[in-house]
Amino acid sequence: MQKLEYKNLIIDFENNQFLVLDQRLLPLEEKYVELKTVHDVYYVIKDMVVRGAPLIGIVALIGVYLGNNLVEDMNLLRQARPTAVNIFNYFNQLQNLLSKNNTGSSSEYKSLIKKFILDIIHSEETKNLNISRNGYELLSKILSKISETKSVNFLTHCNTGSLATIGLGTALGIIKYTHQQLSKVGGKVFVWVDETRPYLQGSRLTAWELDKEGIEFKIITDNSAAYVISKGYVDVVCVGADRIALNGDTANKIGTLNLAVLCRHYQIPFIVAAPSSSIDYNLPNLENFEPEQRNKEEVIKFKNSYITREEYDVYNPSFDITPASLIDYIVLENRCYSKPFIFEKGLVR
Amino acid sequence: MQKLEYKNLIIDFENNQFLVLDQRLLPLEEKYVELKTVHDVYYVIKDMVVRGAPLIGIVALIGVYLGNNLVEDMNLLRQARPTAVNIFNYFNQLQNLLSKNNTGSSSEYKSLIKKFILDIIHSEETKNLNISRNGYELLSKILSKISETKSVNFLTHCNTGSLATIGLGTALGIIKYTHQQLSKVGGKVFVWVDETRPYLQGSRLTAWELDKEGIEFKIITDNSAAYVISKGYVDVVCVGADRIALNGDTANKIGTLNLAVLCRHYQIPFIVAAPSSSIDYNLPNLENFEPEQRNKEEVIKFKNSYITREEYDVYNPSFDITPASLIDYIVLENRCYSKPFIFEKGLVR
Repeated sequence: MQKLEYKNLIIDFENNQFLVLDQRLLPLEEKYVELKTVHDVYYVIKDMVVRGAPLIGIVALIGVYLGNNLVEDMNLLRQARPTAVNIFNYFNQLQNLLSKNNTGSSSEYKSLIKKFILDIIHSEETKNLNISRNGYELLSKILSKISETKSVNFLTHCNTGSLATIGLGTALGIIKYTHQQLSKVGGKVFVWVDETRPYLQGSRLTAWELDKEGIEFKIITDNSAAYVISKGYVDVVCVGADRIALNGDTANKIGTLNLAVLCRHYQIPFIVAAPSSSIDYNLPNLENFEPEQRNKEEVIKFKNSYITREEYDVYNPSFDITPASLIDYIVLENRCYSKPFIFEKGLVR
Repeated sequence: MQKLEYKNLIIDFENNQFLVLDQRLLPLEEKYVELKTVHDVYYVIKDMVVRGAPLIGIVALIGVYLGNNLVEDMNLLRQARPTAVNIFNYFNQLQNLLSKNNTGSSSEYKSLIKKFILDIIHSEETKNLNISRNGYELLSKILSKISETKSVNFLTHCNTGSLATIGLGTALGIIKYTHQQLSKVGGKVFVWVDETRPYLQGSRLTAWELDKEGIEFKIITDNSAAYVISKGYVDVVCVGADRIALNGDTANKIGTLNLAVLCRHYQIPFIVAAPSSSIDYNLPNLENFEPEQRNKEEVIKFKNSYITREEYDVYNPSFDITPASLIDYIVLENRCYSKPFIFEKGLVR
């Protein structure tokens, strides 16, 4: 298969055409950006034209495919979004593959990368389905409400759906899969959507996906989560992960830790869902992990208008660290993990 | 004194001129709106040209002064921001005063209202100073850091300063007063400013006030609070109150409860500061209190641009309820209260 079309990504190796959906414009506009060079790829990742750890990883691989100097290109691309461990993991796997199989012929080299990309895409799609199914099975066990009322009220943060991944999604995949299952028996799913400042992935992207799926939702400001949880309106919080350490510590979109603390206080399950490619096998924990800081304009500017004076100081960490102690379950593609989380290389095939 | 000039409010009884600063335009523009009728007053409160519970109360009194039908006008104005208990309290006091002293002469009636407004303004200004001083004295006791390093790192939400009140402010008053005291001994104050979605009172108004006072600050998205607190960057969280029940339950800007839960989890003091006019003597607690819901455009629109599709559902409660159990101290103008909070009529003179 030479051409793959997803909503967020169109790959056509035959015609050497690679398009990504500009997620910055959603949901008001659906426009694709063409990738012709490794620098194009660097900028679409850096400027968040594409986002979502699994998608970023795949797009970074396309960057390598388009480039000419493996080591230099990989170095450049790793810097585009330093928290997205998928880039690092995929690059390591690709380098292993190339060092074992490359005969030095340029066409074979390209063809190896191409095959690797197609394998990864296929594998991510399968993983998402498995994560979604595992998550649904977990919820069926831990939420008696599912069998009693055939309904679940989720709260989610950022966007972890088909836009962020290839396939159904991770945390949002669980939500969609649960919706599909409960719909069959006349039940229903409701989703509280954190708008997810500063980039508004929730109100823009998650809302867009839920709307397309026909799943009922309401957008809330991130600071409303405590209130809706305190009122008993939320059964479970599901989020994704950009990087998971071996002990389960999770780096994810800023605001994730906030939700984990709320869930603990109000005794609601807090679930992280991710493909195993989000595990960083080099990090025993994330205690000293320094998340990416992004520029202040993301916080104090909307489109071309300043919200406040541009000279004011801003602190804009893109991610926060949720310690494993605040996470109830981590759902991967092979199965669902509960505490103590001890991830090892090779644990997940 | 016939003319009073504050940054947020200019009152000139002699020339019958009443101006309020349009806080929606801050900090990019400083523009005043003239109040000529009770309906003008209704709209500036409703549309948040003015905001902050103490200021709203005073502006509502100006509405009564400008109107012709006490009961009708009061009913209208109470609906403008139903959570601001100051309006209700001031109106009750004014009605008592009028029923005792009004001889039926229209000029005497106006003159009684005028005197009442001037008294309230004077009293609020004094209260703010006392709240600020009480708060500083509390912090000096509970934060050993103040004597050791002569520094405090605050986190605050919304705007509770000179824009929201008459005078120094409440929670922000404490911050400013602490800054003044520590500056004298070469110390310093730092403030994490929650941007405070959806209305951005933090990044627009609190930042503006802190900048003018020369106090160092950084704006953060509301969902970053957990992260900065988890890193040990915050010594204390101070917020204001729109309404306090007799048991200490507090209704305040959406996001307040979120901070209270974080403070409890990370064992950081959580302080509510307000004038006693924010106490609702009719409410034993706020368990069944239904906070004002505001329109969805506040969340999904910025200036004239939609952030996301306008048809998407939004839940936009303007306030949340922080149970007394999560509040460590309530600082009023007479003194600082700790648990159990038992407020009674006449407790605070």
